[in-house]
Amino acid sequence: MVKRVVAQGTFDILHPGHVHYLRDAAAMGDELVVIVARGENVTHKQPPILPNSQRVAMIEALEPVDRALLGHPDDIFTPIEDLDPDVIALGHDQHHDSEAIQAELERRGIDCAVERASAREPDSEEELLSTGLIIDRIIERRGR
Amino acid sequence: MVKRVVAQGTFDILHPGHVHYLRDAAAMGDELVVIVARGENVTHKQPPILPNSQRVAMIEALEPVDRALLGHPDDIFTPIEDLDPDVIALGHDQHHDSEAIQAELERRGIDCAVERASAREPDSEEELLSTGLIIDRIIERRGR
Repeated sequence: MVKRVVAQGTFDILHPGHVHYLRDAAAMGDELVVIVARGENVTHKQPPILPNSQRVAMIEALEPVDRALLGHPDDIFTPIEDLDPDVIALGHDQHHDSEAIQAELERRGIDCAVERASAREPDSEEELLSTGLIIDRIIERRGR
Repeated sequence: MVKRVVAQGTFDILHPGHVHYLRDAAAMGDELVVIVARGENVTHKQPPILPNSQRVAMIEALEPVDRALLGHPDDIFTPIEDLDPDVIALGHDQHHDSEAIQAELERRGIDCAVERASAREPDSEEELLSTGLIIDRIIERRGR
């Protein structure tokens, strides 16, 4: 039995925090499938810079990832039902309520654990461990 | 005998053009080692936004890459001598003179082919296939 893990996120400008999350998620099972949020569904923060297909292609190129796909336009649980994972791995800083997710999974009859990845310890003070920090640095250095 | 390929570049903000280059390079042999330029040595274009260690960590996380290391501060051929590759894979848009590289390799007694990777066909018109285009888009959308 292959133990399938699902991770998810926006994954706009990639950084080592993303890689850490996905390595941690991959270590929770045998196969890692990543659901990449559609730009039009990112409402809790600024919409991503990079188009949907480009963010999927980049996630799929990362070593810990077996497969990446775009999220559903209307219902975040639809791909979870299709994938039927053994574990949903949340990022350490993702503002999801694991108990609410667990309740919805049970309501839909999906038998799946909800786990949370650890945070990455920065390698050095220089590291930019969020898309927002990278964008701020770009505007600071290159903005007209 | 493991056929070792070396690729190199700045690899600042990653995009599918980088992935294409590295997949193409990996397909030229059995093992792909990537030399990441030190920020202080990038003089032909604007210095990278991301620190050296972060660019190495991101390249190492890509599926086609076996190992990544920082370039030599003074002599770009020193790591090539150490690695003794069978192939040096140049990016399709890298402004290197393959004949000059070949001549220097011969002068140093390194028996190594110089090949050039293909360009990536964009998946869609939306794709941003260079770090510069991504930076321009960020400044356009988020610049103050």
